Amino acid sequence: MTEEFAPPVEELISQFRRLPGVGKKSAQRLAFFVLGLPDAEAEAFASAIINAKKTVFQCAVCCNLTDRETCPVCEDEGRDHTTICVVADPKDVAAIERTREYKGTYHVLHGVISPLDAVGPDDIRIRELMARIAGGEVRELILATDPDTTGEATAMYIARLAKPFGVKVTRLAYGIPVGGHLEFADDVTLTRALAGRSEI
Amino acid sequence: MTEEFAPPVEELISQFRRLPGVGKKSAQRLAFFVLGLPDAEAEAFASAIINAKKTVFQCAVCCNLTDRETCPVCEDEGRDHTTICVVADPKDVAAIERTREYKGTYHVLHGVISPLDAVGPDDIRIRELMARIAGGEVRELILATDPDTTGEATAMYIARLAKPFGVKVTRLAYGIPVGGHLEFADDVTLTRALAGRSEI
Repeated sequence: MTEEFAPPVEELISQFRRLPGVGKKSAQRLAFFVLGLPDAEAEAFASAIINAKKTVFQCAVCCNLTDRETCPVCEDEGRDHTTICVVADPKDVAAIERTREYKGTYHVLHGVISPLDAVGPDDIRIRELMARIAGGEVRELILATDPDTTGEATAMYIARLAKPFGVKVTRLAYGIPVGGHLEFADDVTLTRALAGRSEI
Repeated sequence: MTEEFAPPVEELISQFRRLPGVGKKSAQRLAFFVLGLPDAEAEAFASAIINAKKTVFQCAVCCNLTDRETCPVCEDEGRDHTTICVVADPKDVAAIERTREYKGTYHVLHGVISPLDAVGPDDIRIRELMARIAGGEVRELILATDPDTTGEATAMYIARLAKPFGVKVTRLAYGIPVGGHLEFADDVTLTRALAGRSEI
């Protein structure tokens, strides 16, 4: 089959098609929506992509995404820097911040250990976490990876590494539905999960 | 609630959120996917948007999207320029071309008349169609708008305008499921609908 649309349209469709959860028909719909936007708005879309890629980095301390050298949480003197909540993803930081209950800092792993997806301990930000622990200031590590197989395995792996440093290692309470995802939990459930955290 | 992510990330999320069918969670997922792409691939995505907007225009004759002055179908001497198939959308042209049965030309309306959405006859490419008919070369108009309320109304409106010019006006046969959308019809159904077209 030859191309159905003009080459630049086909290229735009194929770019949308790469996005997660976007199939052929959706990609066409999105591409034609963008083609129908006023020029300035389409340019704003393209610029947002470029700008986010250019200006967003991982925080030098916690690896969360930020547009500064160090993220606002790590820079905040009012927060408890002896407690680190370890999460898989920047979206999980946002979910916990919404509870307004947590006053410690974070560490974003950017993934979980998953042998089936060929993701090992060196592919996520565990080394950076261990460096923070080795610094000596950390007293508690709250492991807040998702309560599914890979999240549990990652938590266990980190717990084993961290314990020799004399750090208290806790896991979020199972207020979160087992098999669910942290980012979809409601604020109350998350607050309870934080309060009922248990030592591993 | 303050911003949950760094401002450039929030901006990217809000850009994705404007897309049709993309909610808050999907927009976050898409934004973080793009942030996770290698720089070159994110740039290719942004460039595809800019490039498509810059180089894709409506064909001077049939109003289909093309990156040339005149689209390949309108330029093709081998096609029957006395027959025009009138569709609402460029995606509908692609659907009919897939049947490989139709040898005439097209006219893309870029929408249908829909008073509820404040879309009147002047908001779609009816004037351009009438200019082609007034040119005298057109013998048949196949009205291939969707067989739903607005598609039918648009077809009736165009039929009334075109008949005084002595043009044969036909409608696709109801091989297409009533209430369905042209772009999702399979090739056989579309072929039958073309063959069984009836004069209005």
